[in-house]
Amino acid sequence: MPTSSLFVAQVSSGCNSCEETFRHPSMARLMLLTDVGQAPIRSVDPRTGEPFGPSFADATVEDVKQVVGYAGAAARELQGLDVGTLAEGLDRAADAVDAASHELTRLADRETALGVDRLTGEVARTTGQMRMFAALIRDGSHLDVVRSKLPEGAPARTLLRMNLPIGVVGVFAASNFPFAFSVAGGDTASAIAAGCPVVVKAHYGHPQTSQRVADLLTEAFAQAGLPEHVFQLIHGGNETGRDLVGHPELAAVGFTGSIAGGRALFDLSARREAPIPVFAEQGSLNPVVLAPTALEDPQSVASALASSITLGSGQFCTKPGLILLPSDYETTFVEALRSRVEETGPHILLTEKIFDGYRAALDRIGQVLGVDVWTGDYNAEGFSVPAAIIRVDQATLASNDELMTEVFGPATVVVSVHDVAGLQELLGSMGGHLTGTVHGASQDPWTRAAVSGLAPVVGRLIYGGVPTGVAVDIAMHHGGPYPACTSVQHTSVGTAAIRRFLRPIAYQDMPTELLPTVLTELAL
Amino acid sequence: MPTSSLFVAQVSSGCNSCEETFRHPSMARLMLLTDVGQAPIRSVDPRTGEPFGPSFADATVEDVKQVVGYAGAAARELQGLDVGTLAEGLDRAADAVDAASHELTRLADRETALGVDRLTGEVARTTGQMRMFAALIRDGSHLDVVRSKLPEGAPARTLLRMNLPIGVVGVFAASNFPFAFSVAGGDTASAIAAGCPVVVKAHYGHPQTSQRVADLLTEAFAQAGLPEHVFQLIHGGNETGRDLVGHPELAAVGFTGSIAGGRALFDLSARREAPIPVFAEQGSLNPVVLAPTALEDPQSVASALASSITLGSGQFCTKPGLILLPSDYETTFVEALRSRVEETGPHILLTEKIFDGYRAALDRIGQVLGVDVWTGDYNAEGFSVPAAIIRVDQATLASNDELMTEVFGPATVVVSVHDVAGLQELLGSMGGHLTGTVHGASQDPWTRAAVSGLAPVVGRLIYGGVPTGVAVDIAMHHGGPYPACTSVQHTSVGTAAIRRFLRPIAYQDMPTELLPTVLTELAL
Repeated sequence: MPTSSLFVAQVSSGCNSCEETFRHPSMARLMLLTDVGQAPIRSVDPRTGEPFGPSFADATVEDVKQVVGYAGAAARELQGLDVGTLAEGLDRAADAVDAASHELTRLADRETALGVDRLTGEVARTTGQMRMFAALIRDGSHLDVVRSKLPEGAPARTLLRMNLPIGVVGVFAASNFPFAFSVAGGDTASAIAAGCPVVVKAHYGHPQTSQRVADLLTEAFAQAGLPEHVFQLIHGGNETGRDLVGHPELAAVGFTGSIAGGRALFDLSARREAPIPVFAEQGSLNPVVLAPTALEDPQSVASALASSITLGSGQFCTKPGLILLPSDYETTFVEALRSRVEETGPHILLTEKIFDGYRAALDRIGQVLGVDVWTGDYNAEGFSVPAAIIRVDQATLASNDELMTEVFGPATVVVSVHDVAGLQELLGSMGGHLTGTVHGASQDPWTRAAVSGLAPVVGRLIYGGVPTGVAVDIAMHHGGPYPACTSVQHTSVGTAAIRRFLRPIAYQDMPTELLPTVLTELAL
Repeated sequence: MPTSSLFVAQVSSGCNSCEETFRHPSMARLMLLTDVGQAPIRSVDPRTGEPFGPSFADATVEDVKQVVGYAGAAARELQGLDVGTLAEGLDRAADAVDAASHELTRLADRETALGVDRLTGEVARTTGQMRMFAALIRDGSHLDVVRSKLPEGAPARTLLRMNLPIGVVGVFAASNFPFAFSVAGGDTASAIAAGCPVVVKAHYGHPQTSQRVADLLTEAFAQAGLPEHVFQLIHGGNETGRDLVGHPELAAVGFTGSIAGGRALFDLSARREAPIPVFAEQGSLNPVVLAPTALEDPQSVASALASSITLGSGQFCTKPGLILLPSDYETTFVEALRSRVEETGPHILLTEKIFDGYRAALDRIGQVLGVDVWTGDYNAEGFSVPAAIIRVDQATLASNDELMTEVFGPATVVVSVHDVAGLQELLGSMGGHLTGTVHGASQDPWTRAAVSGLAPVVGRLIYGGVPTGVAVDIAMHHGGPYPACTSVQHTSVGTAAIRRFLRPIAYQDMPTELLPTVLTELAL
């Protein structure tokens, strides 16, 4: 049996005859993977729902085997490559993508309906990231070199610890950022910068944009003198993804998407003979706490939140999906929020799957007793949907898991909370989120309770702002406790994102001429 | 169903009636967990095989629930504690253990037969580690504080990233280091230093030593003013371990032991609703390559390796278990190695399980065609065993997995390799190891091939020495690719070990008065 079909075989193993197996939670998650990618992949215009352009064939198990094999060879070639050339490759790739920005953003807009302006900004962010990682590796701080001369009588005379590339990285592109979290996005840029070959599985929501960006990268890397196959793109559905994660030569996975998708990859890795780290940035509710001192005049906070909720049609992993506030202020705040949300739109979702998911979630929530769902206007074309504001009290929230599940799209849940003790109880029962946000005066007991209750469960804690807008920065942390991420210790945005694709080694008493040449090259 | 029995239930779930299930690899691993801890735990003298002293009851599922619940409360109390008090707790604990060294080493020697001298050194290493982590947290560098003032137009004005404690840590103590990798060992010291409450499951091989050390720690921490339940000890078998890993409030696991044990904990975590990091330092062969230039006079390298192989009766995770050398030099080297190994002993293993495992492994290896097993003398009392040198050629090694499996005890496998290409092939097919060692001149092609072939698969690469003896140091990395470790990015020895129990958070535009007080306390 070829190794890359291992996980397929495990999913449908001997337990097929045993009904109970399919109720096993991880089995259920694996089966979620099978609902996409059966037909050939083709672009769809979200504004009309019409397909257009060429079809892209799914990479077969043999294709994946070959591609990862090539990547393994590239990993060995990268060992001997100087950092200057690697950085040059990233810079050239950034230049090539920038030069094609006009063409790329128009193509991506047809595939995603995210708008040319937003996409133009996203291209700049994407190429800025590539240049940032190029600068980082020229400096060498990512290698975290530490040297020790050990005392007399110690088991060694000298130790030198530094980071090495982790190996071949599989990247699963996201739907909602066709540039910044896709083919040339932060996962790819940071992995290449770390010295790891990358195999990207394109997102089926923007296959033409993916292919075009991949072609630009391949050419730029070749011109810079990087090894062949340092970067490869594959198209495909979930079976292709399974083959990729199951390949024994894969060393790490980067993923941005849903909890179901990320968990499925995590579970596949955990079933490998040699498990590998899965850096999955998953869904999040991004709770916002509004203290009484922030609600005396609700207009400005309502306005900021309305924009944040509907930005990109609400398809941000940092969209504020849960707003907690004192009961006394609920009516006036919701009124202000509604009128601001009504000014936004149209809201066109990225894919038919996301469109169906949004409508189904609103249907389910609408059936929960004690919930008030308000929806705005929308036209019925393509994947257009209404914005939604869902009002519940704390008791209803606590007894309905559905309300604590991310709705991907322009919807948010507003929860009226009786008192500070209620807020503490609610925050104390929460799983992980990418962000938490607090509005209120520093001395307001609601503010204090929000900060101390949110810190243990979020990756980023924001005061007085909105969670959307993730700065690409040395001090950014874009991650968080599960289920926000499968690795609580890593970020997928900012310079620290490179740490995902590095691993330490200690050299003991090693002569200089046998140490990695990068130490001499960068005088570290 | 109480949550803490979740994993027990999953192991024996509906698939009980389905024979296939038990052939599923991860199920097989889970079942390995059931062979220990059914009878009450009692000390056994390895020199005689006789039990002595009191019995220790297994912690029940309700006990574990209570203990982890208490630890969760301690985690919340630790949020408000100053770093000075935490460091003081570690220093006092170190003083208390040092003061009891005479009594502790005699007790531990009766339980482990490791010898009072070696154990006295181990106590010093253990308390040295506690003081090292106390000094580290007083300095604050472990918090990795990074501040940014963001440019005009960025989504935030300021960002501050720093590390927070990961939460309640479960520590599984090792058999072979009753102090340094046990109750007060590196996992406990680094987790407490990180601000995480610890629940240690004692190793059944030295329950009295474990209890005595735990009592000292509990008293010292209380005297320093640390929260109650910041440290707790439980005894128990594998069911207790399952309950601990399955508790929803547990945030991370530290483990030192076998591949089967570590992988079982990893699999349990992967099945949790919210998986947690499992830092399992597992088995390793620690390959040693001897180049021709190191073998002109084989006496000194044979002598060093004989000591390393038999140190602590070969019960080190860094024991050299695989020696690769050119065929031409095999006979003279093995002769020298045998005569040096014959000078060592007696070799008394720690527990009946390890004793049985060693004998069974030698039996299995002896049945492999083309293998030559030499064993030394031994007396038949208690858990005494002979040292063993196993000779094979490369082809035999490649076709028998048994020979690439760690034998825990004073045995090593010597492999004759035809040429440099053969060496490259062998190293290229290897899984992960904690260490690799190379002897030979820098320009020797065997040396070059060994360094480049070992670097991708080891956590520490040693030139001209032996792998046993792991310096507790800022530049140490004690870890490696799977199966050496379940987390290739972390070390369990040295100051960097604290990183396992920290996780980043970014504060955005947060007023100083709402930031963690440690920033003010340490002027960070």
